[in-house]
Amino acid sequence: MNAIVFDGKVRLRQESVPEASGEALLRVLRSGICNTDLEITRGYHRYQGVLGHEFVARVEEAPDPAWIGKRVVGEINCACHDCDLCLDGRERHCRQRTVLGIVGRPGAMAEFCVLPMENLHEVPDEISDDESVFVEPLAAACEILEQIKIRPIDRIAVLGDGKLAQLIAQVLVGETDTLTLIGKHRNKLDFAAHMGAEVKFAEEVEQDLRRWAGSFDVVVEATGVPSGFQTALTLVRPRGILVMKSTYHENLRFDAAPLVVNEIQVVGSRCGPFDKALARLQRHEVHVLPLVSERYPLSRGEEAFRRAQEGGVLKVLLDHSG
Amino acid sequence: MNAIVFDGKVRLRQESVPEASGEALLRVLRSGICNTDLEITRGYHRYQGVLGHEFVARVEEAPDPAWIGKRVVGEINCACHDCDLCLDGRERHCRQRTVLGIVGRPGAMAEFCVLPMENLHEVPDEISDDESVFVEPLAAACEILEQIKIRPIDRIAVLGDGKLAQLIAQVLVGETDTLTLIGKHRNKLDFAAHMGAEVKFAEEVEQDLRRWAGSFDVVVEATGVPSGFQTALTLVRPRGILVMKSTYHENLRFDAAPLVVNEIQVVGSRCGPFDKALARLQRHEVHVLPLVSERYPLSRGEEAFRRAQEGGVLKVLLDHSG
Repeated sequence: MNAIVFDGKVRLRQESVPEASGEALLRVLRSGICNTDLEITRGYHRYQGVLGHEFVARVEEAPDPAWIGKRVVGEINCACHDCDLCLDGRERHCRQRTVLGIVGRPGAMAEFCVLPMENLHEVPDEISDDESVFVEPLAAACEILEQIKIRPIDRIAVLGDGKLAQLIAQVLVGETDTLTLIGKHRNKLDFAAHMGAEVKFAEEVEQDLRRWAGSFDVVVEATGVPSGFQTALTLVRPRGILVMKSTYHENLRFDAAPLVVNEIQVVGSRCGPFDKALARLQRHEVHVLPLVSERYPLSRGEEAFRRAQEGGVLKVLLDHSG
Repeated sequence: MNAIVFDGKVRLRQESVPEASGEALLRVLRSGICNTDLEITRGYHRYQGVLGHEFVARVEEAPDPAWIGKRVVGEINCACHDCDLCLDGRERHCRQRTVLGIVGRPGAMAEFCVLPMENLHEVPDEISDDESVFVEPLAAACEILEQIKIRPIDRIAVLGDGKLAQLIAQVLVGETDTLTLIGKHRNKLDFAAHMGAEVKFAEEVEQDLRRWAGSFDVVVEATGVPSGFQTALTLVRPRGILVMKSTYHENLRFDAAPLVVNEIQVVGSRCGPFDKALARLQRHEVHVLPLVSERYPLSRGEEAFRRAQEGGVLKVLLDHSG
């Protein structure tokens, strides 16, 4: 089968169809390129193999035949159910976990991929294939609401204007009276503004950082670049919350004194609840299709990866039927 | 009056008695050398002036004469009562605050110092002068319980075996079934063990870090050295809490991916509630006198600072009567 792999370089390669062995074999319909995929191609997690963890598929084979033919999305963390964290109900953090296209498990940028049955969620008819690809990152955005309490009077800043930042802004904008998205690209800021966010150019804020210092109750760092963290730490008020969504391949380096002196709470935030993301898409509470910049057939995945790394580009989708 | 100042070097200097102007003039009885004082002498906060913020004193002059002659300790943050943070009830984080011996206000290592009346707490007779000097750092240790919930089943690690780490261990050991203090000095570990903590040599843990990785629900970083943060991040379990007590003069540099991937919550923690610290000392729930390594008269403060920087030394007190 065709697959997009990373083996030091991103390339289209012929791979054999994976063995299901007790799990579900999924025929992938669409997949999406995520920043984590781009970070992997820069060395993140030292992963090599089939890429991709944002997808929608049809169940081809399954231990429970009632699932065959269903359209599904899949949670990406596969748990052992045996370690202390699994037994404690934190399967997403399982010590022996594999992660689709990230840790020890071939990803979804292929004609087929394999996941445990328990990871699957059926996609309601109201949600299109393209929209379904956003369930995984949208769940990651929803995770913030599982981790912290937001009050309507909280002033929230989202740093970054990329795909994840946009989803976060859409999820949080309904929770507060003032959400400000701070980014670098006119077109992306315009879209966020259209979705109800106040928007600011990062340059403006950075040039007048003293004025902006400590002016947000909650700051979500989703720039994807390490310098975003220091800016976030400056923008959050004493005793405020800094939600850390970016995973950087590089080391983070910053002056930690304000973290202690201002008693900031930093909350690392990763994968989230698929059911809540599906419900939001089904109720049309978030608008993801305007975030699609380009579509490529799977066979042109190498080109799609090059495109995804260009400035100003949002989501690049791969169509697996082509 | 005699005062210990930092002006690029720690020295004994003659200073004029400060003007009270609406605040209380305090005759200092004892003061203590804190790690923050040592950090200041390395450039932290770029503070220059009279050092010291851990002290006990008698009220010499006060707007309310009922206070004159009382034995007091004093909160170190002096608020403006006018900025957004003050109006929001977060006076300790006031944007215009001065901080005794740290930011814009001469410290307590002098015959006299000055603080607003509202910062003063009368010291009950059951608490000795030497013990009273520990109210400020003990309050900082108590602050952790104001910020996070600890359950008896939580496995807690305190990194560091210095003065603050010892106070933290004593405060937290009653809250959990297993508290482990990880340090470098035999004598300090012995004392912590005597106070009910399990103890480990840092070297042992670092040599077998894979085994210890993710094995604590709560890790308190109180080593005072930046490498402590990376160790803390390794020791805390996924979705666990890392309480950050150390303030480093240097930048912090670490791999931030585990923070996000493991959804760690980092909580910066600084000054705490004096009333709770006083209550614990009054009830003899914490034992601070064994933490006193040396006493010097104020006039030998330069020597006292040199001594405080030596390994194995815990609290160095200055006696202002001498």
